[in-house]
Amino acid sequence: MKKKAMHAPEALNEAYDYKPRPSSFSRGMRIDIRGVTILLISGTASVDERGQSIHEGDIKAQTWRAFRNIKALLESEGATWHDVVRTTCYLKEMRYYPEFNEVRTQFYEQEGLDPLPASTGVQAHLCREELLVEIEAIAIFESDDKSE
Amino acid sequence: MKKKAMHAPEALNEAYDYKPRPSSFSRGMRIDIRGVTILLISGTASVDERGQSIHEGDIKAQTWRAFRNIKALLESEGATWHDVVRTTCYLKEMRYYPEFNEVRTQFYEQEGLDPLPASTGVQAHLCREELLVEIEAIAIFESDDKSE
Amino acid sequence: MKKKAMHAPEALNEAYDYKPRPSSFSRGMRIDIRGVTILLISGTASVDERGQSIHEGDIKAQTWRAFRNIKALLESEGATWHDVVRTTCYLKEMRYYPEFNEVRTQFYEQEGLDPLPASTGVQAHLCREELLVEIEAIAIFESDDKSE
Repeated sequence: MKKKAMHAPEALNEAYDYKPRPSSFSRGMRIDIRGVTILLISGTASVDERGQSIHEGDIKAQTWRAFRNIKALLESEGATWHDVVRTTCYLKEMRYYPEFNEVRTQFYEQEGLDPLPASTGVQAHLCREELLVEIEAIAIFESDDKSE
Repeated sequence: MKKKAMHAPEALNEAYDYKPRPSSFSRGMRIDIRGVTILLISGTASVDERGQSIHEGDIKAQTWRAFRNIKALLESEGATWHDVVRTTCYLKEMRYYPEFNEVRTQFYEQEGLDPLPASTGVQAHLCREELLVEIEAIAIFESDDKSE
Repeated sequence: MKKKAMHAPEALNEAYDYKPRPSSFSRGMRIDIRGVTILLISGTASVDERGQSIHEGDIKAQTWRAFRNIKALLESEGATWHDVVRTTCYLKEMRYYPEFNEVRTQFYEQEGLDPLPASTGVQAHLCREELLVEIEAIAIFESDDKSE
């Protein structure tokens, strides 16, 4: 078994680089075990490459950014959204659901996803007041399918 | 690896059929990989085959329905609650926990579960105000064990 | 495939032993399948071997205890925190995050973790008012690596 942290520094900063204190988690973990690769992507929000929250007050733009940040993390391991089998979606207020879902539908259509991932969506306040959405994802594929 | 969406239309509607807008997720995802089958079941609530919330205001009846909806999804892939290894349970208000847990205990006894699944339970508002409980589940088994 | 409940009764009680009513989940589930071992550890809080909440009002002490309870569960299966690939962390109030994260950083340094697990952290009220933090964890390793 091999295990490594995932990085997409051109899209979002390393949690460990937050100032004044590092936040102790990886943006994602890649596990290679017995021919299977699992990507466990941490809760991902509308954060940029410097660790700043972006698109304050705009649920649609934050949702796009969260999906794109996860896309960058997937691509860093040679994967795509087609490999995602489940997401967990946290919304700061459930009233954002229609707009969140609208963007998700557009994003998945753009990516050509079929079948759609399993998903759970609940309301939860997030690590910063200005963040309106956070998405966690699991991808799984046979290791032969992608170059590492 | 094979991957497919899970369906149990006689128990609960397809999320993609919600009107006026589809909700972009599958009720569950089946993954077959290297002799192992994983069923990732989406957050499942007391929703019926037409997508209506049922048993408004009744935590016990909603809990039964959520467990039974998951049972229908499992059965659609030849699995049972014996294959479930973990649940995540969201309650709209934590004061519902005793009644939720009472039904869970009865349901698990009825199904003859031993060992009991791992579980995490927290309070969270759900996608509709009238929904009091939502349950997510993971099942895993060797592919030879069940006919597909 | 083999499946068994995890126990660490010297650290935290069995959920099934709660009075007046059992809580119907295992502290964790061990799955051995095709040479891979997966440990799914249930949401774990600052609870002691008698099932009592401890360190009321003290987020740092509660965080230490939750990490140590999970450590005890891992050790019961011959595993360590090095095998943990993801956590999900629930804080009763997000204002506890800096202190929670400080303890987490210390704990992970003490354990010598590198890479750090993937993680999602959100705000959620927990099963008892006095509990301020709850942590869920997944560990994965090749079965040959550890004696059962």
